[in-house]
Amino acid sequence: MQLEDNKWMEIAISEAISSQKYSEVPVGAVLVDLQFNKIISKSGNNVVRKKSPIAHAEMLVISSSVKKLNKRYLENTAIYVTLEPCAMCATAISEARISRVYFGAYDEKKGAIENGIRLFANNSYYKPEIYSGILEDKCSHLMKKFFSELRKNK
Amino acid sequence: MQLEDNKWMEIAISEAISSQKYSEVPVGAVLVDLQFNKIISKSGNNVVRKKSPIAHAEMLVISSSVKKLNKRYLENTAIYVTLEPCAMCATAISEARISRVYFGAYDEKKGAIENGIRLFANNSYYKPEIYSGILEDKCSHLMKKFFSELRKNK
Repeated sequence: MQLEDNKWMEIAISEAISSQKYSEVPVGAVLVDLQFNKIISKSGNNVVRKKSPIAHAEMLVISSSVKKLNKRYLENTAIYVTLEPCAMCATAISEARISRVYFGAYDEKKGAIENGIRLFANNSYYKPEIYSGILEDKCSHLMKKFFSELRKNK
Repeated sequence: MQLEDNKWMEIAISEAISSQKYSEVPVGAVLVDLQFNKIISKSGNNVVRKKSPIAHAEMLVISSSVKKLNKRYLENTAIYVTLEPCAMCATAISEARISRVYFGAYDEKKGAIENGIRLFANNSYYKPEIYSGILEDKCSHLMKKFFSELRKNK
């Protein structure tokens, strides 16, 4: 299964790289149908382009997937995200009943799964299976490079 | 100021009541421009109608306000919500830099401000001013009535 996981994460990474061209923080997400082993939806961050602070990659993937499938819950799916989801996205993933979360880099500041509020330690929320550190080096390198260039250009 | 706060909360309550007609959990939200003292956007829950688990009143108000104002941050605004925001909405409010949050009923299960994860006790997130319990009885009565009728009809 690891090869398969890396394959989906590579696609999330491509989404992150594409969004970076528009000065977006390079985060990408892919939702995979676990029954048919195919992509339902993928997206990078769109905060800059949409001028919306809530247009995170995961939120856009959830919105477009429920629309595409015309159903409220995304059971039997897995989301691959290059960065540990924040509290907004982790809650949205839970509300959407996504079965599994695979994330790449850890986010000590705003991450809400292994860091910070550790949302799923709270029993009020539906808890997906969590797999962390998938292609971590590649995912975190993207972020570090982005912020280091941002500092240089200031 | 209390009369003014009650006035905006009454409008949020109207949004909650309107959405209930469509079997939505009765939650309403209003975003107010603090400089001009006028409504920017208002909405009820749209989870059932949009078949989207993330279409909470607050999320819709934020999306439509940033679109309307064509800017990423909603500084100098106040959001009035009939129910204590969940972790997703509380984070979205913070990411949008909304200055003040006024909420009505407390949500012991999924509330994320005075309950549960208490998001703003976490220093990684921008913290708005919080005013809770505005027209609390009216707001919580709406919720209790909705869930009691739901149980009766099961």
